[in-house]
Amino acid sequence: MMHTTKELQKKVQDIFDNKNYLSEPQGLYEPIQYSLSQGGKRLRPLLALMGSSVFGGDLEKVVNPAVGLEIFHNFTLLHDDIMDQAPIRRGVASVYKKWDTNTAILSGDTMFVLAYDYVTNSDPSFLIDVLRVFNQTAREVCEGQQYDMNYETQEIVNVDDYVEMIRLKTAVLIAAALKIGAITAKASKEDAQNIYDFGINIGLAFQLRDDLLDAFGDQKVFGKPIGNDIVTNKKTYLYIMAYDRANTKQREALDRAYSLDNNEDKITEVMKVFRELNIREVTEKMIDDYYQKSLVYLDAISVVKEQKSELYSFAKGLSLREV
Amino acid sequence: MMHTTKELQKKVQDIFDNKNYLSEPQGLYEPIQYSLSQGGKRLRPLLALMGSSVFGGDLEKVVNPAVGLEIFHNFTLLHDDIMDQAPIRRGVASVYKKWDTNTAILSGDTMFVLAYDYVTNSDPSFLIDVLRVFNQTAREVCEGQQYDMNYETQEIVNVDDYVEMIRLKTAVLIAAALKIGAITAKASKEDAQNIYDFGINIGLAFQLRDDLLDAFGDQKVFGKPIGNDIVTNKKTYLYIMAYDRANTKQREALDRAYSLDNNEDKITEVMKVFRELNIREVTEKMIDDYYQKSLVYLDAISVVKEQKSELYSFAKGLSLREV
Repeated sequence: MMHTTKELQKKVQDIFDNKNYLSEPQGLYEPIQYSLSQGGKRLRPLLALMGSSVFGGDLEKVVNPAVGLEIFHNFTLLHDDIMDQAPIRRGVASVYKKWDTNTAILSGDTMFVLAYDYVTNSDPSFLIDVLRVFNQTAREVCEGQQYDMNYETQEIVNVDDYVEMIRLKTAVLIAAALKIGAITAKASKEDAQNIYDFGINIGLAFQLRDDLLDAFGDQKVFGKPIGNDIVTNKKTYLYIMAYDRANTKQREALDRAYSLDNNEDKITEVMKVFRELNIREVTEKMIDDYYQKSLVYLDAISVVKEQKSELYSFAKGLSLREV
Repeated sequence: MMHTTKELQKKVQDIFDNKNYLSEPQGLYEPIQYSLSQGGKRLRPLLALMGSSVFGGDLEKVVNPAVGLEIFHNFTLLHDDIMDQAPIRRGVASVYKKWDTNTAILSGDTMFVLAYDYVTNSDPSFLIDVLRVFNQTAREVCEGQQYDMNYETQEIVNVDDYVEMIRLKTAVLIAAALKIGAITAKASKEDAQNIYDFGINIGLAFQLRDDLLDAFGDQKVFGKPIGNDIVTNKKTYLYIMAYDRANTKQREALDRAYSLDNNEDKITEVMKVFRELNIREVTEKMIDDYYQKSLVYLDAISVVKEQKSELYSFAKGLSLREV
């Protein structure tokens, strides 16, 4: 039986509303409780439920791995925030900032164990399959973070390398959530692969939209300060495309803008060149390309179209999102 | 069929000699290769093999979880060395020192995934049981590290709290290695519990011996500089017992000694009080108590005594070790 996205969102919310991670020693578990009760989009557990629902799966069987996916995602945020020196997460202090680096390391490690604990509580009939996807994905997410850090100091990053980085760092976990949902619903291997590839393309579109919103988003809607990627000289898709398309004069303007000390001036000047080079339109085009590609895989999934309608609208919403 | 400890040690060495962890991105996998090729005692995989052998298990079936245990152990060292600011590990620079903190965090996380990868490749007939032990143990090791860090700033640590800390931080992984070996050999639940409890007591003796060797060991044999725990004011069993047994005058002498700036003087003065208070003998007694307790559990394991002879001598060797 099919569930609406709204129903599944409600179910995800119920799952997490009832969770309490507090235990002894408090210094270890309080940061975990803090991290997991800040909310966020809960996108990955939602996708796991959707991945089950589209194949008519028993939702109860996807709950444990779905929780594992969300805890794993939050674990990566704890460690990423140390590595990226990011003081704010979801509008509040990140764990390493509120406590300290050691706490963020160790509470993060514990969340990783918790994630595996939930995954282990999957139905034994598909436990190994879920674990295999989970392990490979976890490893790829680490690889993606490493590339992301490498690119900070690497002079030239080309578009292909960038896309591969965001595939590993962001898209594989979104794809894995859908695939794990499908596995728990006993989908065929082909369908599990199709929903995974659908997820990869939606995930790439999702991250490119994130890059775009950082520069062109509405701060009130987006929730994060606009221009943060520009201020930190982050080599986003926009940055890479701007240098790619710039003529000599525009390249000099970009160099000058990116080396400004005053953040407001820096954002203004970089945005000026972005606009001149139609970076917004170029990025929108790329997002739409991945969105269209995702639909090919969604089309290929062997269930009747009506059963997939929620995934079609969700994909559309995710690639067009303003938040 | 029974294997000698020597045979099993040879097998463990063969397993790790043939391993290569290098992959892309190099910045992520080189520190892993570095960490896992430094050797060390390979105690945990050896114990996993012994735990199988005592029950006549098929050694091939314990290889994957045994490798997972060793990688997990090394992962904890990468993160612990950051938290404890320990620049040296096995006589060479620790990963965070040779590279940097971010590298030690992320390569450590990746090792954690690798560990689960190996565990997942266990025989499906006992995968869940192995995973349950592994998850619980991993969580307890994190809790132990948290208590260890808490005790750095906590004024008074009593002996029971200290023993609970080393149980979590060190003993549970040793016990888990033995138990996982037993599980792969299809030992009964009672025997698996007995070998676990044997491991806990051996693990406590092992860590107390470590505390003792730091102060009373022979540097040439021990491999680490003597007195490091004293220099860093670490609240070891020796420290706690010294304060416990000291009269007012001796307590003042300890306070004075521990606040000395010159490391050589500090070690000399602290050792003077340790000797006065018979701390060596007190600790030897405690080690022997745990050793004797371990034998009760070893006795209870339902295989003929000859089949357990290697475990009896191993336990004796471990609690009497000078290295």
